[in-house]
Amino acid sequence: MNGKVFLVGAGPGDPELLTVKALRLLRGAEVVLHDDLVTSEILRLISPTAQVQNVGKRCGTKTIRQEEINFLLVTLAAAGRQVVRLKSGDPLIFGRAGEEIEALRRANVEYEIVPGVTSALGAAAAAGIPLTHRRASSTLVLTTGNHASGNDDANWGQFAAAEATVVVYMPGSNYGEISGKLTAAGFAGETPCAIISRATTSEQRIYRTTVSDLKRAPSLASPTLLVVGEVVRFADQNLLREAVTVPALSREFGDALAQTLLSPAETLRGGEEPLA
Amino acid sequence: MNGKVFLVGAGPGDPELLTVKALRLLRGAEVVLHDDLVTSEILRLISPTAQVQNVGKRCGTKTIRQEEINFLLVTLAAAGRQVVRLKSGDPLIFGRAGEEIEALRRANVEYEIVPGVTSALGAAAAAGIPLTHRRASSTLVLTTGNHASGNDDANWGQFAAAEATVVVYMPGSNYGEISGKLTAAGFAGETPCAIISRATTSEQRIYRTTVSDLKRAPSLASPTLLVVGEVVRFADQNLLREAVTVPALSREFGDALAQTLLSPAETLRGGEEPLA
Repeated sequence: MNGKVFLVGAGPGDPELLTVKALRLLRGAEVVLHDDLVTSEILRLISPTAQVQNVGKRCGTKTIRQEEINFLLVTLAAAGRQVVRLKSGDPLIFGRAGEEIEALRRANVEYEIVPGVTSALGAAAAAGIPLTHRRASSTLVLTTGNHASGNDDANWGQFAAAEATVVVYMPGSNYGEISGKLTAAGFAGETPCAIISRATTSEQRIYRTTVSDLKRAPSLASPTLLVVGEVVRFADQNLLREAVTVPALSREFGDALAQTLLSPAETLRGGEEPLA
Repeated sequence: MNGKVFLVGAGPGDPELLTVKALRLLRGAEVVLHDDLVTSEILRLISPTAQVQNVGKRCGTKTIRQEEINFLLVTLAAAGRQVVRLKSGDPLIFGRAGEEIEALRRANVEYEIVPGVTSALGAAAAAGIPLTHRRASSTLVLTTGNHASGNDDANWGQFAAAEATVVVYMPGSNYGEISGKLTAAGFAGETPCAIISRATTSEQRIYRTTVSDLKRAPSLASPTLLVVGEVVRFADQNLLREAVTVPALSREFGDALAQTLLSPAETLRGGEEPLA
């Protein structure tokens, strides 16, 4: 029997934020190759008869190169195994899945991609930050901290003027440098930011600051995400009241519908079909 | 007993791409208010004793305004109900959750945000498009079709030069106009694009084209997403072989590890703990 590789997103950390499909595949897998960032609560859900291997960069003293992971995936599938390649968040965002897909295609190995809740969405949900908002931001940019310390500084300027919400994956802990580069790229010093550490886990921490004060931020436990933009204001209930005007609740149509929905279900629904 | 509102992402369409938590909440909900785009397969998973109401824009002849939805959420929770506000994809991305959160906070109603797999991730997984790639794109931009036909054209130019992957939610069907605006914003005519219709459902369709040929694209059934960027090349296996060079698979460390992982699990694992 031919094997198959499933490139599966594990979501942001909370095991309940696995998709139903990811959970089914973990329970049926013969081999699971996972990243460092997949939480132990999720690893405990894997079938007890499965082989489980950490292939993350912090796997003991040994560093596994991407080509070695590619080789493993191809070899295990060729030997007939059902292999789950488990990546934190979503496999297609900063997960190097592209390189693994190339290797699997070249080797004619069957594969399937199972999307997951990417870390930015988990962090935003935990902090109560709407990543887009009709009045504040119509665009979301997901990028990596490599830009902050690498050669791609030019890119940051592209986003400053776009009224976009920017989420920086793997920002590192040199917040002084990131603050300087955000400012140089054109972000106003008072632009609100949040650093979210270990989102959706029991160790979650959220630190609110601004672009100019970011340099004084504490170093929080990894993985962290940095969210930059006006929408971060919504994370704080007190600031919210000053910052925005909410339209009055409409009673017009809502009142009648509320009464309808508060009545017992059987008076409204026929069988399993929802109301149109 | 006080009620509570759960703002829940339903994912891109496939019921198996619900999170475990979303499924649990749908089974326990007393009232579910959902958008148009939530699929019937997902609605069938809701507790049969729950009140279910479509509050989408295409809800029969009546148009429900956002303020009316806000009012409903507050009223139902105040009456002690466990309410699920179910939105396709993720609630914090183009879902107007920000406005609902504001209303709930003002009314001191308890709420919780449950993230979901946003549509772009479902579509990319279905089409085999890595949204970021070490060699092709280090930034992902999620935006809406409103930019294509509205007053915000300036924003598109911000992303053209950034070597970003751009995903346009709700692109509409005037692809000629979008093609023109992408070109005017600086995207090269040969930049590959994909239109993905009803991703992750049985009616999924994928149409590959380029920025310059986009105007000749057929009108596919909504919801659709438009993906623009070099990474779209990866969706096509034949183009892939010409476009990229894959490093040779390394046998160095991989060979020994493959043999280990192919041996029975019990020789390697103690109890439920995965290998470190």
